[in-house]
Amino acid sequence: MGKLSRTQCSTHDLLKLLVVALCATAFVSDVRAADPDPLSDFCVADLSPNAPLVNGYACKPRTNVTTDDFVYTGFRQAAASDAQIMQSPTGAVVSLASPLEWPGINTQGVTHARLDFAIGGVIPLHTHPRAAETLLVLKGTIYTGFISDDNVLYASTLKQGDVILFPKALLHFQLNVGNETAITFNTLTSQNPGILLSANQIFEPNITSAVIEKSFGIDAATVKLLKASYPGHP
Amino acid sequence: MGKLSRTQCSTHDLLKLLVVALCATAFVSDVRAADPDPLSDFCVADLSPNAPLVNGYACKPRTNVTTDDFVYTGFRQAAASDAQIMQSPTGAVVSLASPLEWPGINTQGVTHARLDFAIGGVIPLHTHPRAAETLLVLKGTIYTGFISDDNVLYASTLKQGDVILFPKALLHFQLNVGNETAITFNTLTSQNPGILLSANQIFEPNITSAVIEKSFGIDAATVKLLKASYPGHP
Amino acid sequence: MGKLSRTQCSTHDLLKLLVVALCATAFVSDVRAADPDPLSDFCVADLSPNAPLVNGYACKPRTNVTTDDFVYTGFRQAAASDAQIMQSPTGAVVSLASPLEWPGINTQGVTHARLDFAIGGVIPLHTHPRAAETLLVLKGTIYTGFISDDNVLYASTLKQGDVILFPKALLHFQLNVGNETAITFNTLTSQNPGILLSANQIFEPNITSAVIEKSFGIDAATVKLLKASYPGHP
Amino acid sequence: MGKLSRTQCSTHDLLKLLVVALCATAFVSDVRAADPDPLSDFCVADLSPNAPLVNGYACKPRTNVTTDDFVYTGFRQAAASDAQIMQSPTGAVVSLASPLEWPGINTQGVTHARLDFAIGGVIPLHTHPRAAETLLVLKGTIYTGFISDDNVLYASTLKQGDVILFPKALLHFQLNVGNETAITFNTLTSQNPGILLSANQIFEPNITSAVIEKSFGIDAATVKLLKASYPGHP
Amino acid sequence: MGKLSRTQCSTHDLLKLLVVALCATAFVSDVRAADPDPLSDFCVADLSPNAPLVNGYACKPRTNVTTDDFVYTGFRQAAASDAQIMQSPTGAVVSLASPLEWPGINTQGVTHARLDFAIGGVIPLHTHPRAAETLLVLKGTIYTGFISDDNVLYASTLKQGDVILFPKALLHFQLNVGNETAITFNTLTSQNPGILLSANQIFEPNITSAVIEKSFGIDAATVKLLKASYPGHP
Amino acid sequence: MGKLSRTQCSTHDLLKLLVVALCATAFVSDVRAADPDPLSDFCVADLSPNAPLVNGYACKPRTNVTTDDFVYTGFRQAAASDAQIMQSPTGAVVSLASPLEWPGINTQGVTHARLDFAIGGVIPLHTHPRAAETLLVLKGTIYTGFISDDNVLYASTLKQGDVILFPKALLHFQLNVGNETAITFNTLTSQNPGILLSANQIFEPNITSAVIEKSFGIDAATVKLLKASYPGHP
Repeated sequence: MGKLSRTQCSTHDLLKLLVVALCATAFVSDVRAADPDPLSDFCVADLSPNAPLVNGYACKPRTNVTTDDFVYTGFRQAAASDAQIMQSPTGAVVSLASPLEWPGINTQGVTHARLDFAIGGVIPLHTHPRAAETLLVLKGTIYTGFISDDNVLYASTLKQGDVILFPKALLHFQLNVGNETAITFNTLTSQNPGILLSANQIFEPNITSAVIEKSFGIDAATVKLLKASYPGHP
Repeated sequence: MGKLSRTQCSTHDLLKLLVVALCATAFVSDVRAADPDPLSDFCVADLSPNAPLVNGYACKPRTNVTTDDFVYTGFRQAAASDAQIMQSPTGAVVSLASPLEWPGINTQGVTHARLDFAIGGVIPLHTHPRAAETLLVLKGTIYTGFISDDNVLYASTLKQGDVILFPKALLHFQLNVGNETAITFNTLTSQNPGILLSANQIFEPNITSAVIEKSFGIDAATVKLLKASYPGHP
Repeated sequence: MGKLSRTQCSTHDLLKLLVVALCATAFVSDVRAADPDPLSDFCVADLSPNAPLVNGYACKPRTNVTTDDFVYTGFRQAAASDAQIMQSPTGAVVSLASPLEWPGINTQGVTHARLDFAIGGVIPLHTHPRAAETLLVLKGTIYTGFISDDNVLYASTLKQGDVILFPKALLHFQLNVGNETAITFNTLTSQNPGILLSANQIFEPNITSAVIEKSFGIDAATVKLLKASYPGHP
Repeated sequence: MGKLSRTQCSTHDLLKLLVVALCATAFVSDVRAADPDPLSDFCVADLSPNAPLVNGYACKPRTNVTTDDFVYTGFRQAAASDAQIMQSPTGAVVSLASPLEWPGINTQGVTHARLDFAIGGVIPLHTHPRAAETLLVLKGTIYTGFISDDNVLYASTLKQGDVILFPKALLHFQLNVGNETAITFNTLTSQNPGILLSANQIFEPNITSAVIEKSFGIDAATVKLLKASYPGHP
Repeated sequence: MGKLSRTQCSTHDLLKLLVVALCATAFVSDVRAADPDPLSDFCVADLSPNAPLVNGYACKPRTNVTTDDFVYTGFRQAAASDAQIMQSPTGAVVSLASPLEWPGINTQGVTHARLDFAIGGVIPLHTHPRAAETLLVLKGTIYTGFISDDNVLYASTLKQGDVILFPKALLHFQLNVGNETAITFNTLTSQNPGILLSANQIFEPNITSAVIEKSFGIDAATVKLLKASYPGHP
Repeated sequence: MGKLSRTQCSTHDLLKLLVVALCATAFVSDVRAADPDPLSDFCVADLSPNAPLVNGYACKPRTNVTTDDFVYTGFRQAAASDAQIMQSPTGAVVSLASPLEWPGINTQGVTHARLDFAIGGVIPLHTHPRAAETLLVLKGTIYTGFISDDNVLYASTLKQGDVILFPKALLHFQLNVGNETAITFNTLTSQNPGILLSANQIFEPNITSAVIEKSFGIDAATVKLLKASYPGHP
């Protein structure tokens, strides 16, 4: 999809690229979303500040709904420039189309994301607690896979046009192994899949060191060292 | 996604292009599929002839599962050549990645399709009885939309990189309005969404003419005429 | 059920019989309804204008609930007189008992309808995007059936007391083939099944003619002709 | 529905009328049934003795499916003669259309029943552990209701054509309060709702007397007396 | 779990022990609760008086959520003193941890209860309309079981550390058969399971005597007698 | 629950304590399990070698079902002796009651586990991809918590009798902070929750070092070091 232009991303600073993209994700989970069967033809998310905080978004009055609520145009370009992506902590950025940006998908049980990779860029090890995922390679060559319940890796190198499945809530990663930038289009089977990046989950909150030590079989000094070097760290 | 090559489709004859693609879909619904939550990390579809005919596919023994079960490479190219697509009944063909071609998605609640359009090509009016759908434009310009429960059209012209939602089981269509061939990547929120093409459903089975007459406010002669001209007719 | 009296329907005009009945249905889908498991013993629909527009009806305060909320008496008679039904566009009318008329069924996953047919009357080809349906013949002889995913008709002539299933979201129809008026009692497995009448869906919204032409293999003039003659047209 | 004839029921003896009808129900729960979303257009129950005992019925090969699988004609008449119903333990009999008699409803989430009442006949207090229920009065006058979680009775007297809801899994009953026989058509929102008749559940199994004593605040002698007189007792 | 202290229960009077405990349960079902998949990482129940009465609890603003919302400490001791339990109608009391006491479990599909038994104490015959249940014996010896759809008793005597399952919505009971007080920890697979105590359901509401008579094969005088002696009666 | 005896665990060797316990879990996910609504009163898991490999366990013939299928006695004692637990890699062992050990819970949507902790023992950081979890402290003092979607720790120190919730599929841990051994009783809202221990998932499969490096912001040498020291390593 080479024609998807890669322009400057005015709304993002270099230093917070991946962090910002992921915070956007976190913010998504900061609101309530619901994934039962769609219960009417549509229920476009009411994003107004006074909407009731129910389990899932309240519905916008039908008279205010337009076609634009069902169309998302934010994937036309990457969330950052090539230079910015290259300098981001892991060499990759995520754009997510959730009900916050695409209110018409509320109640329809699906979200999409666009991933942009610098050469060697990585989407770090993570799980989505509430979704299975598929990845379509739009451009480039991606080495990617997931780890099963019994700790077996199922991984493969995908070319443009290939699709892979990451089963629901399992650990997975993506790595640009080609010699050019890469783009993928991802599908998540929930309108609020959530994203738990292993490093951020382990090192960002103040978990007692003893737990991390025993979890990984390391000493307190190593924990401190790891904590200091994890990508989300300022 | 211009690099997705468009080679000859050796397994399809010109005359049955769309029909064949849709029959493949029908065949998918000829087997059993299940869309509850995935109930183990994976349950790769057992496609052997002796697999029990349960509501959904039986699972392949875990020892036989490989990464290839989770990867689908059939979207690298269209299901037919440009010439064939142009000469197909509606100027468009569908490739579907269901558990039959992509056994690893069994129980994960998602299917993908690739649509290829000649200039002016159309995916006719249809519903998916068991899925919502999204469409990503990979190449070209697509006019597309759906009709709500109260018979209102929500339609828009999408450019490359745009995504639209068709809510669950509602009527929708796609039309290539650009001056080049077009490609889309579609997501369906069921492993067996089904496809009900309005014309095929109305004119292929032997429905009493009186029902069609009253349904459309036309006389028997007009029904006969319409039946004779519908695209799936030999 | 001959004793179900057939009185004049004071609230409906002749000209809008089927349309009105169907608009009522559309209006039902205009509000939000939910079909998960009932989550308390009951949640009677709050139909007050200030009730929050959530995905499904808010619940009436328990102290305001009475037995009347759980009982529906609107099926005692047809939605129109015999004369009116005979002169309606397709010779049949629908009464629907949704949470709007029967608030106690909110969250219980079921709706009922009463269909009244003049001799030769037809409920046109349609789908319910969110429900399976059964039909019980209360009076008369009905030829009815559905079309499967692979475009096969399963149809039969039913006598009084017979029941048939229309699987979830598939296309179906009903035709009074007896020499008397007919009545059926229908069950839908959702509190907001929705109804997509093929003709209304195709000809009421302003769908680009090219899409209908290619969908049915007809020319623009025929589309215009069909559009002019469809039953819902004024 | 006076025309629904009431003929002799050759397959039932007088003495076991209700018991037999209810045993049929128990037998239904003796096989496995599944109520997830229908996962293909249909999955007609495979009732052959070698069908795998999975959670729900296996599917009959599609080539063996006919329209008859979707039609049930067993409600044309009562399960017993008027005289037999009158002499049955509670003056009422149940006919159930489950996948065993109506294989096409497998996976569609619905069952129907026909109830026939002598004057004063009663369907005893019971719950359906896996379904909500509605009741349509086809003939006669029925006093019926349910008891909420907080032990409040919601009951009403229904005339021909009226419908009432019994919320999912709550206790309910039906009583013919008219001066003629009565018929109802019931809908249950599961293909295997189950039926727990309070008296049968309490007195048929060999529950330690102390539990029944404390449950009802009675002594052992009274338990023995009640046990001896409950309708299902030989 | 002998160290779980058994202190005086200042908030409960002797006379209303079981009744109060069960009323608490009834009150739980008096509010709305929802058991779909959790749809965000959490949705702590908003118990404020102005929270919308939707099907399930509205969510507390995330900024107000603390760890305390996810922890329940009310099981440290019994809901009553040993003396009070012994003098309660059935010799047993229930403490329930529902979203009212434990707001963090909202949307997570689980509730717990602690049962305390005097010697010979009984939790009377009952069903939970919306949950399966397990019971862990913390202290003592419990004879307990359930009755299947076909009226067969599955019961056993459990020792400390044993667990038993009561399938969803089936009738069950618990009896302390040891020579000491007993404690159990129970799990219910819904955040609002509901509790239908057979005796309370039959004798507390004003059900027409004829229904109870026919249900149990007894005369009106016996019904009156039973009603007068049931434990919940003042 | 001091009376729960702590005997020698004859079937486990010292060296493989936690590993074995976790392998048991992995083996659980090696078979198929299903968590839809229970669809009949029960469907006891058919664990015979010829049972069909469907999505969830096939059902044992009803005539073979006994009360023992519904009772689990394996929690009466720990899975290992105190000495063995102390010498296990993290000072804690898990016993899981899945359908393999407790076939009656098949289709009922719940599993239980018993955790035994040496002083300072830890259940390492992990997620359950298909379940929420609660933990009841049976003995001792446990510091435990989970990390939300937005990387915030919700943790607390629990005493005997306290219960905490870990929302569905989120990362959590347990640490014995008391000066005695500790025991907990855990509930998981799926019959096959799965367990993804962060360290095992990251270091046991052969994930390309580059992915781990970028995920954690460390170099290849550190990855190698960590891999060598993780607890599951031989």
